[in-house]
This record gives sequence, C-alpha cells and structure tokens, in this order.
Amino acid sequence: MSESFKSNPSRRAFLRGTAAAAAGAVAAGAARAAEPDPLITEVQEWASGLGDGVDATPYGLPIEFESDVIRRNVEWLTADTISSINFTPIHALDGTITPQGCAFERHHSGAIELRKEDYRLMINGLVDTPLVFTYADLERFPRENHVYFCECAANTGMEWAGAQLNGAQFTHGMIHNMEYTGVPLRTLLEEAGYSAEGKWVYVEGADASSNGRSIPMEKALDDVLVAFKANGEALRKEHGYPVRLVVPGWEGNMWVKWLRRVEVMDRPVESREETSKYTDTLEDGTSRKWTWVMDAKSVVTSPSPQAPITHGPGPLVITGLAWSGHGAITRVDVSKDGGKTWETARLAKPGEKMALTRFYLDTTWDGGEMFLQSRAMDETGYVQPTKTQLREVRGLNSIYHNNCIQTWWVRENGEAENVEVS
Amino acid sequence: MSESFKSNPSRRAFLRGTAAAAAGAVAAGAARAAEPDPLITEVQEWASGLGDGVDATPYGLPIEFESDVIRRNVEWLTADTISSINFTPIHALDGTITPQGCAFERHHSGAIELRKEDYRLMINGLVDTPLVFTYADLERFPRENHVYFCECAANTGMEWAGAQLNGAQFTHGMIHNMEYTGVPLRTLLEEAGYSAEGKWVYVEGADASSNGRSIPMEKALDDVLVAFKANGEALRKEHGYPVRLVVPGWEGNMWVKWLRRVEVMDRPVESREETSKYTDTLEDGTSRKWTWVMDAKSVVTSPSPQAPITHGPGPLVITGLAWSGHGAITRVDVSKDGGKTWETARLAKPGEKMALTRFYLDTTWDGGEMFLQSRAMDETGYVQPTKTQLREVRGLNSIYHNNCIQTWWVRENGEAENVEVS
Repeated sequence: MSESFKSNPSRRAFLRGTAAAAAGAVAAGAARAAEPDPLITEVQEWASGLGDGVDATPYGLPIEFESDVIRRNVEWLTADTISSINFTPIHALDGTITPQGCAFERHHSGAIELRKEDYRLMINGLVDTPLVFTYADLERFPRENHVYFCECAANTGMEWAGAQLNGAQFTHGMIHNMEYTGVPLRTLLEEAGYSAEGKWVYVEGADASSNGRSIPMEKALDDVLVAFKANGEALRKEHGYPVRLVVPGWEGNMWVKWLRRVEVMDRPVESREETSKYTDTLEDGTSRKWTWVMDAKSVVTSPSPQAPITHGPGPLVITGLAWSGHGAITRVDVSKDGGKTWETARLAKPGEKMALTRFYLDTTWDGGEMFLQSRAMDETGYVQPTKTQLREVRGLNSIYHNNCIQTWWVRENGEAENVEVS
Repeated sequence: MSESFKSNPSRRAFLRGTAAAAAGAVAAGAARAAEPDPLITEVQEWASGLGDGVDATPYGLPIEFESDVIRRNVEWLTADTISSINFTPIHALDGTITPQGCAFERHHSGAIELRKEDYRLMINGLVDTPLVFTYADLERFPRENHVYFCECAANTGMEWAGAQLNGAQFTHGMIHNMEYTGVPLRTLLEEAGYSAEGKWVYVEGADASSNGRSIPMEKALDDVLVAFKANGEALRKEHGYPVRLVVPGWEGNMWVKWLRRVEVMDRPVESREETSKYTDTLEDGTSRKWTWVMDAKSVVTSPSPQAPITHGPGPLVITGLAWSGHGAITRVDVSKDGGKTWETARLAKPGEKMALTRFYLDTTWDGGEMFLQSRAMDETGYVQPTKTQLREVRGLNSIYHNNCIQTWWVRENGEAENVEVS
C-alpha cells in the first residue's frame, strides 16, 4: 500500500488489543491471533428486519436504554416533593443544550397547569398605563432568541457541610441551559410607560407561592426576557408554561415561572424569597442579601461517581461544564492531583455570556488514582475558588452560592467518589 | 407622575382596546369604560392549590395543550409507513433548536433498536489497519460540538408539481437543527491509517436498508462527524441511536443512522441511494447526480396555513427559518405582495454555517390580503430562486432539491393557503 495518514501511534496501541483484533477476524486476508468477536458471527436482529414506522411516535421519548438519564430528587432534602427540587442528569449529558424533559425543577408550591387562554400578564405600578396582556398579545411584540444557563442559588448547597452527595447530578445538577425565545421585559415596560421614579420591579408568578422577587430597574431594562419558548418549543409545564421570566446570569429563583405580574416600584418589596430565603448569614451575624449574580463555576461531569471510568489505562476524555453570570467563561483548567498541578482544558466553543460552556481534556490515564478538579475563569478575571477559600470569606453558615472547586477521587478501578481536599 | 419612558405610540393603540381596558378595571384609581375581564374576578384554580411534585416526571413530555406540536406524516405519500417520512411541526416552533421528540424522521426500513453494547463501527478498505470500534471506544476520542441543520433532499419535493400541501410543516418540514456531539470522522480514518489512494468513503448503517452512500474523501476529512449525542442527550432511537453520521450542509440521506461501516475506496460505489434515488432527470434526459449540498432556502413559518393570524390589523410578527449548506445565511427578505416588493428581515442572530437561522419581520398588518414570501441569501452571494426560475433550469421532472421561494396567500380573516404565484 502507498503512503497513508496515521494518527499519533500511542493512541493506536489501546485499540490494538480490541478493535484491531475484532476487525482482523473479518478483514479480508488478514490473519490475526485473536478471538473473533462473537457478535459478528451471530444474526443481528436489528439488521434483519423492519423497524418502527413514521407514525409510531408523534412526539418521542428517549430510548429505554437511556433510563439513567432522568431527573432525580433526593427525598431527605425537603419535607415534601411539592416545595422541592430535582436535579439534571449532567453526568450523562454532553454538549451544552439541556433537554426540557430532564432539566431540573424547583417549585415552591408544585408545577401548575395554566392554559394559554387563561394566561394573563399585568404590568402595573409606577407606569402611565397599567396593562394586562394575554398570551396572544405577547406574540405580537418583537422577539429575541438567547441561550442562557439557569442555576438555582442553592446548587451545591449541601456541599457546604462537606462532601455529601455522591454524584455530579446531585452536587451540581440544579442547572440547565436552553435557547429561549421571548420578548424583552423592557419592551413591555415601555409599552406601559414606566416612570423615571421606578427603581425596581416586583415580579410574581401565578402559582400559589407566587414566588415574588424584586429586581433592580437597570437589570429589568437590560436583558431580562419574558420567555415563552425553550429549545424551540413551548415551555414545559414544569418550566413555567406558558410564560416565564428569564434573568440572565442571575439566581434561578428570580426566573419566575407562570409569570403573572410585574410591578414598577420606587423601592424593593423585601419579599420572603429575598429575606428569609436566598440570603446567607456570615460569621459576624450580618447576612449576604441580594446576591443576584451566579459566580463563575465549573464541574467535571465525567468521570464522576455516576460516570465511572469503564476502561483501562490509555486515552481518557475528561469533560465538564463551566459557566458565569458575570459574562463569558474564558478558560477552564483541570487537575488530576487535587489542585497541585493544572492543565488547561479545551473549550468546545468560545465562552458565551451567561451560557453553559463545555470543556474537554483529552488526556492519557496511567491507571492510578486521581483527585479530579476543574477551575473556571471568566472574562472579569475572576477565578473559581476552593472550598477553603470560600469558607474563609463566607463562614460556615451558608446555604447558597457555593461555587467552589469540586473534587472527585477516582480510584484505580475507575470508580469515583465525592471528596474534599484541603 | 414625573417623566416616563414610552414605546412608539402606534403600537400602544392596538393594546388600548384590550389590555388597557382589562387593566383599567383593576388598577387602583383608574376609571375606564370597559368590560372587566371576567377571568380576573373568578377563582383561579391554578393559583389556589398545589401543583405537581418534583418526582412527577423523571423525564417529561410537553403539556397536553401543545398537542398540535407533533410530527405528522402524509399517508398517501408512501406505500407504507416503514420506508417513509414524517415532518417537523415548524409552523409551531420558534428559535432554532428542534427538539428530538418532534424532529422529522426518514427511514428506509424503519427505526431500529440497537443497544450500545451491540453497537460496532468498522473502518475498512484502503487503510493500514481495519478497525472495529465499540461505542465505548468512540467515547475515548476527542469530541466536538456543532449545531447543524439536517434537511432531506426531498424536502418541498411535492411542491414541484404545484402548491400541493397546505402547511409549512408539510411543505418544508423535512428539516431539523440540533447540537451534535461526536468524533470527527477524520480522527477515526487517521486511526486506521487511510491510504493516499483513498478518494471516497462508502458509509452504511446497521438497519436492513443499510442506506449506503459514497462520500468524497475531501468532505469525509473535512467536517463529517460521527455523532452520538444531540441536544445534550443520546440520539433518539428514531434519529439513529446510538451513533449516526453528520454530514454538515449535505443531503439528509447521507447522514447515515445506526452507522455501521465506513470503507475507504478509490472509487464511488454508485449505490441505489445515489443512482436510482436522490437524482433528478433534466429535460435533456441527463440526470443531476451527487447533488450533495443543500442550497440556500427559507420559509415563513408564521403566518402559514397551520398558523393563521388570529388577531386584527396592527402589529404582526412574521417569522421563519433560513439555511444554506454552502455556509452562513447573510440576509433574508420578506415580501407581502408575492415578490413585487421586499423588506429585509431581522436575523435573530448572525447566520451560522450550516445551521438554521431564525428571521423576524416586525411589521404592521393593514388587515388586507397578503402574498407572503421569504427570500434567503448566503455568504456565497447566492439568492434563493423563484419556482419559475428553478423550473427553467431543472425542468419538470425533479423530485429533489426544491429550494424555491414559498408563497402563502393570507386572507383578510387571517387564514393562509399554499399558492403559486408567477
């Protein structure tokens, strides 16, 4: 054979024992001392008959073999399942888009059923003309499309107390990333004619909890979106159908679902959700309040406790997600030794503002144990801190905004465990 | 009240009769002569009780009220539903991502069930070392993420004969757009060590039809992807689980599902799918063959026959999709008078190469009839042609590659119909 184009020889070594042998058993003229792959000599049922027709699934679900890729909740976390949360199976996903069907939910009085015909959105308060929009009204305003991450402020919250939950889904799964279609809130505020005295908006939803939050006017007029589609289709019931608020880069709690009312005010409401909840008490007794912006954060999703390494030494793909509410992720580093040394990972695409960024480290595993970490940096120059660094600033009483570096202890057998390293 | 910030007054007029009146009935101190909105005085059940808990749907489906947003097939199009096609409900979608669950399917022997453990991918032919990869092997190679559209070459094919199908879903719905995660085919070809004599690859799938196609080596080494995730999660059964080929910008038929084998060859195979099918006979008796690249194309998805205008004159959002296999969409124009005059639409985002682009025209409807069209341009300078222009070049015997300008006749009552205009 004439010249050929080959890859780096070190990687081919890992395949030689498996793939080459299997191919050798069937490739014409090649004699190799290897066990033939039994699969290739048996009848392959899927290749020998007809499959499902095009009328089988008007709206499809994942194949049954992907039953690991589901939302999960942790029963002991909350008193009931109604005011509660579940977690996105980030250990099993790749890319950046989170399918609506397995994207985490956080409800305060459960997910409600609200029809488009019944839907109303009121804009009132310090405005020239209070207005009540129907869903059909909203569809007549100019729309925008944006991909944004939504992270609950309590994401990773259990980990303040230590390495508690054994899986990236549970430690970091209060997050999703979707392409939203909607009308800028600014457009609706201008429609009502907002007063120059308006410094805040109070937003609430149509569910029993209403989940009212105060948002400063600068943010409301900036990039807040009144959204009615996610990943191309209507919002799912559990994601606020038919309309939710999207507050890019800010706490998930503010992304009010089943959005019902926006009131322009000259002061904040200081609702339950921004005083009793979503605040953190520091060691000196004062509380961090209105910690709106989600700080830069990252996590290795694979390998991880729910995604152990199932092969031997050799080529290994380490992958994970990074994000920042302050703008675009610029860099992610990965460590295999608990933060002693770092390598810079490859970003699948340049970081997008307030959206999930996928990173990869294509590396070689020597088969030994690893203490895997990732560390994100965003465009402000901020670097994701260690848990020790965070605790020094926040003390030990925090619930929210735990964006510390996560460590997975990966053992020689490929299994991983959530640990803390100093 | 002090100064306030208002939008353009012409748009506020449309709301005055509805929204303002409704708000007026409840806003403090405002007396308006209008019927109170009955909805606001009745008990709102959804606001008065608890909704679903977080364990209700480990993997969710759309809310029942969105039952229009499904794949549909046209029974008389094919002899059976096994070697057949269905259509994406593009009339009801927005943004650019197509959810896997309602993304169109085209099968030649039905959608098969193939487990990851049973999956094998062979690379053979003019290579140093024939290889057979397991799914687990593929996960060890460097991955990439890309958003690409996939369009069947037969999309809009029925319309060659005239204005046949009454809906954008049916005229243009053999298309979807997803974020793919996978390994470049180039990587795997280098792994096997492809020969300099290799000018083509022959790709086939594991289903009974195998759907073999020949792809020129330059394309195979360029951006062809061996993909195993779409929109973050595993490919759906009907989209080729667990692995499919992604051939950016090229005919959907080449995006072999359940990818089984890639053979490096010094000549094309001239399989059934590239001779008997996916070719078009011209008036002089010769055939267009290997018309790989999907030309620039666009369609207005709303208003359209399945998405009539349900409001009166005033603000109207005209929206649709544009795409090109030759690169990025640079501009989309919209006409309301069947192509006599054109306005340039707003692109939701700058065009991305080989991905769907969403466009909007935020306009004012005078309530009269319209002949709505859209016309796309891509980065090569190519302009989407009219049907007349296309027929002059292709004759009347074509089945595939109908990328002509589409016309919807919108009547005063808001209903739309598929028509041809000269």
